[in-house]
Amino acid sequence: MTGAEMFDRGMAIRRKVLGDAYVDKALSKSGPFNEPLQELVTTYCWGWNWGREGLPLRDRSLINLAMIAILNRSHELKIHIRGALNNGLSREEIREVLLQVGIYGGIPAAVDSFRLANEAFAEIDAEAAAADPGFAENGE
Amino acid sequence: MTGAEMFDRGMAIRRKVLGDAYVDKALSKSGPFNEPLQELVTTYCWGWNWGREGLPLRDRSLINLAMIAILNRSHELKIHIRGALNNGLSREEIREVLLQVGIYGGIPAAVDSFRLANEAFAEIDAEAAAADPGFAENGE
Amino acid sequence: MTGAEMFDRGMAIRRKVLGDAYVDKALSKSGPFNEPLQELVTTYCWGWNWGREGLPLRDRSLINLAMIAILNRSHELKIHIRGALNNGLSREEIREVLLQVGIYGGIPAAVDSFRLANEAFAEIDAEAAAADPGFAENGE
Amino acid sequence: MTGAEMFDRGMAIRRKVLGDAYVDKALSKSGPFNEPLQELVTTYCWGWNWGREGLPLRDRSLINLAMIAILNRSHELKIHIRGALNNGLSREEIREVLLQVGIYGGIPAAVDSFRLANEAFAEIDAEAAAADPGFAENGE
Amino acid sequence: MTGAEMFDRGMAIRRKVLGDAYVDKALSKSGPFNEPLQELVTTYCWGWNWGREGLPLRDRSLINLAMIAILNRSHELKIHIRGALNNGLSREEIREVLLQVGIYGGIPAAVDSFRLANEAFAEIDAEAAAADPGFAENGE
Amino acid sequence: MTGAEMFDRGMAIRRKVLGDAYVDKALSKSGPFNEPLQELVTTYCWGWNWGREGLPLRDRSLINLAMIAILNRSHELKIHIRGALNNGLSREEIREVLLQVGIYGGIPAAVDSFRLANEAFAEIDAEAAAADPGFAENGE
Repeated sequence: MTGAEMFDRGMAIRRKVLGDAYVDKALSKSGPFNEPLQELVTTYCWGWNWGREGLPLRDRSLINLAMIAILNRSHELKIHIRGALNNGLSREEIREVLLQVGIYGGIPAAVDSFRLANEAFAEIDAEAAAADPGFAENGE
Repeated sequence: MTGAEMFDRGMAIRRKVLGDAYVDKALSKSGPFNEPLQELVTTYCWGWNWGREGLPLRDRSLINLAMIAILNRSHELKIHIRGALNNGLSREEIREVLLQVGIYGGIPAAVDSFRLANEAFAEIDAEAAAADPGFAENGE
Repeated sequence: MTGAEMFDRGMAIRRKVLGDAYVDKALSKSGPFNEPLQELVTTYCWGWNWGREGLPLRDRSLINLAMIAILNRSHELKIHIRGALNNGLSREEIREVLLQVGIYGGIPAAVDSFRLANEAFAEIDAEAAAADPGFAENGE
Repeated sequence: MTGAEMFDRGMAIRRKVLGDAYVDKALSKSGPFNEPLQELVTTYCWGWNWGREGLPLRDRSLINLAMIAILNRSHELKIHIRGALNNGLSREEIREVLLQVGIYGGIPAAVDSFRLANEAFAEIDAEAAAADPGFAENGE
Repeated sequence: MTGAEMFDRGMAIRRKVLGDAYVDKALSKSGPFNEPLQELVTTYCWGWNWGREGLPLRDRSLINLAMIAILNRSHELKIHIRGALNNGLSREEIREVLLQVGIYGGIPAAVDSFRLANEAFAEIDAEAAAADPGFAENGE
Repeated sequence: MTGAEMFDRGMAIRRKVLGDAYVDKALSKSGPFNEPLQELVTTYCWGWNWGREGLPLRDRSLINLAMIAILNRSHELKIHIRGALNNGLSREEIREVLLQVGIYGGIPAAVDSFRLANEAFAEIDAEAAAADPGFAENGE
């Protein structure tokens, strides 16, 4: 497989996991300085790693949430919480991951991660309400 | 539930995941100085966390391997590789976790974790061969 | 001791260390999604750990500041700076902890921690001034 | 060499690397509480370490960017990106450092570091445009 | 104070905390390559930091154990467990620190640290038994 | 460029930096389980990253030593100390990197890294003495 083909494979998975709206926005903000970063992330992380067959996307989201919470990378954690929901994890399953983060990575990692998860869920709910005026009345 | 009941729940899960042989050995080496650590680990980590219903043991092993590899705790990683096999993950699925560790936590984390996984698998194979003299002839 | 009793013990210590105002605010913002986190934090962290007799609260604050600064958890550090003052550490003693963080955890950890400590002290002074209009004239 | 002389040596290097405007601002915001931190940072970090002859300032900036990105200290990273430019690294060389951070420290470290680098470059360009009204027309 | 005086102040504290036997051995193994490291550690860490008056040596040991356990530096942790005993902490107080490390830094950090503490205590007991043949009979 | 071509580019650089003896030994110990790790490391780390033109190999070694010391990966640090010498850094320049690690990553990171550097240098000297019986007489 050529690097360009691996990039295309990665872009398709990236769009599937994070959503077209997010990826389009990320790409539109990214100029020439960021091109090699985009190549690295799309080709190796999304194409090579997420494209491997040995684990389903749902399982890859499980371990990604755990790793990124431990690594203390807030911005990435919120993005991957969205990805985890797209990959089929429920909010309750995400909660279990973050509780286990608290046991193995320490209480501050869990407290920070819960705050970020709550923010992500609130943003998602607000987007849903904006897209569907009946949403707010009916609840989630 | 009392603390003693939570301890008992944790001990049952700990034995199921890590095996009686390992847990008996760990307890026999642990004297009075370690008693509060044993209480913490068994009650809080195994009873409270692993005993929660929101995720199956297999999924908890997935995220544990990822976290412990990132946290750079070699001794614990080998123990939890055994636990992951007991919880139904295949060696190939463990490999996928450790490759993803390399992407999100960096190449040195993956290289170290593969070395530890190879050591753990070799020890398990040696134990199986010792317990069953026919094992070595037939391969795994 | 039952889990509920340990939770109550933890809640009493948590309120003593962090203050009723802070804890009431934290609990009022916390909905059903966060319930297991509140249980984990209050029962194990505050009830089991902080409730142990082997070290006084002042010493537990000393080591907490050091750990949380190293772990790079800004939000928690500010909360525990308040707790440390409530537990009897002076601002000058907190400063010594953060200088030692700089030696063992590196200069960037100290620089970030001093910035957060200055912010926490300014907020505390502003609250004191708001509560007591004579405060600003007399200094601290 | 006395401590005061080492402090002076450090202050001269600090001003050379970070610029007078930045250092003057940092010192003006720093009151008596921060004095020992200023002493630590200026004497040991800038005087003792950066003042050693074994590596040129450019090489010290290379390794500083890599370390601070791995350590996840955003505020310091932006400051040292400015310092790296002052020490003769180009934006493209800084980019290479941050890509290598992604390989050895993981993708989230690279993504965060690129965002901070873009912010730093935008601030520098805005300052240049404000100082020289012809800058915006001619590009950088 | 000159750098040489600060070095001497640091060496006196280092010997007081870690013991002459340990420091003499460390220095005898250290050749010309390590000279600037010895200067850095003795002057900056022991002279400047440990020599400050704002916290007693016992408190500095408390926070050092917590930080080094979180930082996952096994070799240094064993050395500072000895130092902590010399500075007046009991084995039970050291245990409390390491339990709190487990809550804030995660269970694997506590498990590793307890193993190292047990090793350090066993080595100290063996040295005491070797130095005093009556020690083994009377227990500690 | 295809993935296979990138793998070949990476293998050539890996052999140039780490030496044929080391790489041949690593590959001979690596069975089918490790194949995707070898692919990841050679293609992505050595081919894509080290093969980029924006920084010379010497500079990439500088930043690698700093990152791996901070990341606390002992096995990798020794390997990359050898690589750094092959890429033209002197032992004295490596020392400067590790001293700066002590300032920005904390004293324990420097102490551990110096120990590993001394071990690596002793092994290299022993290999040189074994290969050239006159080496031991003349010193390095």
